Amino acid sequence: MVVYERVVRFQEVDAAGLLYFPRFLSFAHEAMEELFAPLGEGGYVGLIRDRRVGLPAVHLETDFRAPVRYGDRIRVETAVERIGTRSLTLRHRFVRARDGVTAAVVRHTVVSTDLSTLKSCEMPADVRRVAEAHQEPV
Amino acid sequence: MVVYERVVRFQEVDAAGLLYFPRFLSFAHEAMEELFAPLGEGGYVGLIRDRRVGLPAVHLETDFRAPVRYGDRIRVETAVERIGTRSLTLRHRFVRARDGVTAAVVRHTVVSTDLSTLKSCEMPADVRRVAEAHQEPV
Amino acid sequence: MVVYERVVRFQEVDAAGLLYFPRFLSFAHEAMEELFAPLGEGGYVGLIRDRRVGLPAVHLETDFRAPVRYGDRIRVETAVERIGTRSLTLRHRFVRARDGVTAAVVRHTVVSTDLSTLKSCEMPADVRRVAEAHQEPV
Amino acid sequence: MVVYERVVRFQEVDAAGLLYFPRFLSFAHEAMEELFAPLGEGGYVGLIRDRRVGLPAVHLETDFRAPVRYGDRIRVETAVERIGTRSLTLRHRFVRARDGVTAAVVRHTVVSTDLSTLKSCEMPADVRRVAEAHQEPV
Repeated sequence: MVVYERVVRFQEVDAAGLLYFPRFLSFAHEAMEELFAPLGEGGYVGLIRDRRVGLPAVHLETDFRAPVRYGDRIRVETAVERIGTRSLTLRHRFVRARDGVTAAVVRHTVVSTDLSTLKSCEMPADVRRVAEAHQEPV
Repeated sequence: MVVYERVVRFQEVDAAGLLYFPRFLSFAHEAMEELFAPLGEGGYVGLIRDRRVGLPAVHLETDFRAPVRYGDRIRVETAVERIGTRSLTLRHRFVRARDGVTAAVVRHTVVSTDLSTLKSCEMPADVRRVAEAHQEPV
Repeated sequence: MVVYERVVRFQEVDAAGLLYFPRFLSFAHEAMEELFAPLGEGGYVGLIRDRRVGLPAVHLETDFRAPVRYGDRIRVETAVERIGTRSLTLRHRFVRARDGVTAAVVRHTVVSTDLSTLKSCEMPADVRRVAEAHQEPV
Repeated sequence: MVVYERVVRFQEVDAAGLLYFPRFLSFAHEAMEELFAPLGEGGYVGLIRDRRVGLPAVHLETDFRAPVRYGDRIRVETAVERIGTRSLTLRHRFVRARDGVTAAVVRHTVVSTDLSTLKSCEMPADVRRVAEAHQEPV
């Protein structure tokens, strides 16, 4: 499990005064980048920018359980639930740091993709190794 | 069904060159605003801003099926799948206008919420009427 | 002059309840895309995506004069103030449609840039022609 | 001077592959939040959310000098250039951490504003004190 933590920004709330729901998925992506930061050759940034392999989402399931507001500190706890040959499923739990309440749970399946052809490809060995290091039973 | 259509903007792609996946959910929210635009008292904007009732997401399920790039025109076809006393489920189909390919499908459940207390509330009668007008069997 | 008009979206306001000020610049960029949409070979999208020439900003001056809220319709009036060999300056006036108040004025200088080398380049002839068609004395 | 530093995110670049220029202003706002974080009663978040005083931008001048890409670490150095009775001017210098190049310079004038009436108001004494602690000659 990796823990990614940051505060909800001024511009991340919506006209209802709550964290705009698609931005939960931005937090999820940032947490995934954190998880894969230890990759060699420039980490996740190098994977995308230089090696041209990406991990686009193919499936998402999200439960939103409690509202989040401007200034709330969010702790995202991210683990790998399942690893296939070309895909993997991450599980993110969003915890409101001020009271420990679970604000959201996200299941997030991504597919290893050649960014030049936009076709799926075998997961690079180092991506798999990092994923395995964070694999946890459901 | 309502149809909401717009082009993917310059700033909506990510470093992989694809529509950033949380932004599909922004399109979904915009389509929901379109669906509820006929509400009296200022439409969806008035519902949020003046009547202080919101429709925050409580559950999302999304399948991403085809990549979307800068400049692609997306047609979101939005229908109401289910109406409860306090919640309703929308179904959004994202079609790439240039080739008719289904790029994503989103199921999106929202709960009628009093924005002052952040508690769920009965769905206002006019919200229900507009939702019913767009109800379609799965 | 081109006129680009759209409504401020649910997610474009900030925790103060106003259009988040960097998003005025997004409106400005969208208005510039509108101005250059008549370019051949796929319009502004083709310029960026296929011809790999961009118009990144090198200078901005902005006066914010009146607040803008969720649901406000904004009319951006965009003209070209000056055309050089590699750069041009756009002037955007933001008008709140509900009362005709000028909400902001932006001067926006961009440089014709080869996106492969990130060096400035001579402005393509068709870009210049479209710019000239919208040139207006200050 | 305060120093605010973070990496450019996956979703912050545009279709040209560069940090989308309005997002420089988001970095500037985040740096201002950092500067005012020491305010009592909940810092900048409390100022906006509980005390209902904001610091909306009224004037911006920005020079963009060097491109910034996904994964670049940006150091924003923020000082206060001028303090009036109701307004103050911040100066932000954006430095690319990998090579020390100045990527942008922003002058950013904000006005102390009562968020209930949207009228300017005298700058709260604690806001002024924090600003004075970071005042630097040009």
